[in-house]
Amino acid sequence: MKILVLGGDGYLGWPTALHLSGRGHDITVVDNLVRRAYDREMGVESLVPIATLGDRVRKWEEISGHAVKVQVGDLTDAAFIYAVVAECEPEAIVHFGEQRSAPYSMIDREHAVYTQVNNVVGTLNLMYAIAETDPSIHLVKLGTMGEYGYPNIDIEEGFIEITHKGRTDVLPYPKQPGSFYHLSKVHDSANMMFACRVWGLRATDLNQGIVYGQSTIETDLDPVLATRFDYDAVFGTVLNRFCVQAVTGHPLTVYGAGGQTRGMLHIRDTLACVTLALENPAERSEFRVFNQFTESFSVRQMAEMVQRVCPTPVDIAEGLNNPRVEHEEHYFHAANTKLRDLGLQPHLLDDGVITGMMELVERHRGRVDLNAIAPTVEWRSSSSILKTASPSSDASFLAV
Amino acid sequence: MKILVLGGDGYLGWPTALHLSGRGHDITVVDNLVRRAYDREMGVESLVPIATLGDRVRKWEEISGHAVKVQVGDLTDAAFIYAVVAECEPEAIVHFGEQRSAPYSMIDREHAVYTQVNNVVGTLNLMYAIAETDPSIHLVKLGTMGEYGYPNIDIEEGFIEITHKGRTDVLPYPKQPGSFYHLSKVHDSANMMFACRVWGLRATDLNQGIVYGQSTIETDLDPVLATRFDYDAVFGTVLNRFCVQAVTGHPLTVYGAGGQTRGMLHIRDTLACVTLALENPAERSEFRVFNQFTESFSVRQMAEMVQRVCPTPVDIAEGLNNPRVEHEEHYFHAANTKLRDLGLQPHLLDDGVITGMMELVERHRGRVDLNAIAPTVEWRSSSSILKTASPSSDASFLAV
Repeated sequence: MKILVLGGDGYLGWPTALHLSGRGHDITVVDNLVRRAYDREMGVESLVPIATLGDRVRKWEEISGHAVKVQVGDLTDAAFIYAVVAECEPEAIVHFGEQRSAPYSMIDREHAVYTQVNNVVGTLNLMYAIAETDPSIHLVKLGTMGEYGYPNIDIEEGFIEITHKGRTDVLPYPKQPGSFYHLSKVHDSANMMFACRVWGLRATDLNQGIVYGQSTIETDLDPVLATRFDYDAVFGTVLNRFCVQAVTGHPLTVYGAGGQTRGMLHIRDTLACVTLALENPAERSEFRVFNQFTESFSVRQMAEMVQRVCPTPVDIAEGLNNPRVEHEEHYFHAANTKLRDLGLQPHLLDDGVITGMMELVERHRGRVDLNAIAPTVEWRSSSSILKTASPSSDASFLAV
Repeated sequence: MKILVLGGDGYLGWPTALHLSGRGHDITVVDNLVRRAYDREMGVESLVPIATLGDRVRKWEEISGHAVKVQVGDLTDAAFIYAVVAECEPEAIVHFGEQRSAPYSMIDREHAVYTQVNNVVGTLNLMYAIAETDPSIHLVKLGTMGEYGYPNIDIEEGFIEITHKGRTDVLPYPKQPGSFYHLSKVHDSANMMFACRVWGLRATDLNQGIVYGQSTIETDLDPVLATRFDYDAVFGTVLNRFCVQAVTGHPLTVYGAGGQTRGMLHIRDTLACVTLALENPAERSEFRVFNQFTESFSVRQMAEMVQRVCPTPVDIAEGLNNPRVEHEEHYFHAANTKLRDLGLQPHLLDDGVITGMMELVERHRGRVDLNAIAPTVEWRSSSSILKTASPSSDASFLAV
């Protein structure tokens, strides 16, 4: 199948592109390389060194014999994405091409506006390009479980049957997103649902949980094929941070009560889920929502797992100031059967996975920048004073 | 009370500014004058001639003795709106300053993107300006009943209690907006709800129905104070169109089955509702939603009322091609008690109101452009060929 992978230079886009290419699909990576620019802006780096996109693609062809094409450009440039869709004639488009950090969107006004314009306009342009070029192209779009927020009822997959005052309807599931980034994904979902209805597009919205891990079958073939491992306060995720803290002998930092519970999945399951969505496409006019996670854990549970698995003693620093505005103890029960029904075989989070992540950190220990870990963005303030690579007193709670 | 009226040069913004000024509030109109530019772009005009903003303000001060200040600029220019908020030190801001036509947003990609960026970024900038200048400023924002779409259950005011699998929560009411314009209002509402939660802003979201009428106590004082009367296919509304068709002896054009039912209100009730919201502000951190309409009618019912009231015989052209994608017969029952509880005394749609509207059309009959009435924007197409002021074969169904 001819597939465009938008954001194909990023943490998940790159391994997805390789995985699909390895399965024999004809892949074009589309990326504006902005993820690398965010690193420079924040003064941080992936723990694992990443090669240039050109080197990545050359190495992949050398090893696998599969050519991955590259188009560098920006989705907010309508002429660019129209031309790419027209030229490549894809049957499907996987859309990872958005700013995906909640803290980044909460830095200040400029970053909030950038995130919403970049994400919403990029997806609008893409939908129009599909509608005007070939409305049968299947759009597989990455959303987030964070779109739902944390309601006190079960979370369903995109839609919920509501009985109210004696009448019943199936309606879009109510959303309570927790950052301007999460809001941008909610806006995207609403725009896409509408485009499917009025133009007969076909789309799958993958409301993904928090992804952990860095190792996939394809990226493990050579260090040049490696994908990112982010542990910094802005783009990093919690399990990565805990592994870095454990390996470097620092207490695991649990913000607030630690009862924040999140759907999680292994990076290999991201690849499997996207593949399942592509190879079992939505119908014309269908806006399909899958909740893409395999297990759920509280932040406290994750800290305890890392503590237990770590070969050296490690403390948990609990009750730290929570930079986010969120429920710290809440109900969480979310449906995730649709991808399993398509055949997903989950990789669960066991001791071996955590050990593997800690071994990865150990191999790159010399690249750890502990100053990158302390939260720099405060939800309650509309304008954060970002403290990036320079040493900062805010990092003092990481003291050994 | 010091109040900014954003979009204070528009159809509703202008009479609202006068009404509030007449009640003794200290009013600053903020506008980028783009509404007048849309007319030039579409090749249409308000049926009632409108004076320049400068002439309007001078005439109002001459008649009433109240000075209304003016700031011309664009909400997407953050420096502008920050400066205006800092300089004027308002206690409240009424926000009419958005692109408000569904067909305009559906013309093509450029207009969809323009509408969403203009509306969403304008409101984001405004929220940040409030948060960083004085978070106690009460934001009164115009939304639309069209945010809800047409579910098969009762529509509540912003939130709904849902019992699901044995658990209960009060959640944002699910939205099914019907155009990129309506979607922009949904995006705004979600962004505002979040800002109230994380920054402690206070906001009232007025989900307004379709407004009819052009006469208010203040605008009737002098022709220079008149507000717009739009009947064209892009910015006009259905009751205005029917009045123009009836007076000029053309059949009333009912699109589709005509069962499309909408919440409606008289322009004087818009003024009353905004005043009630301002004078009974939301609490800090509160995101309050009022459904702002007084009655509901189907398109068919409206056509029949106009037909009955018109002194000369008039036909109803039913079953015309519907340019929109919408349910043409549907359940509609929406709550609207919150504004009544604050004291709203509705002006209902009676024969006298329709007679008044037809007399208004009669007085300006020489300005009617029948070519402006035929629909030019087709929801099912992502790219409309706009037919504006030039004679067009699409206007042939208006034949006498």
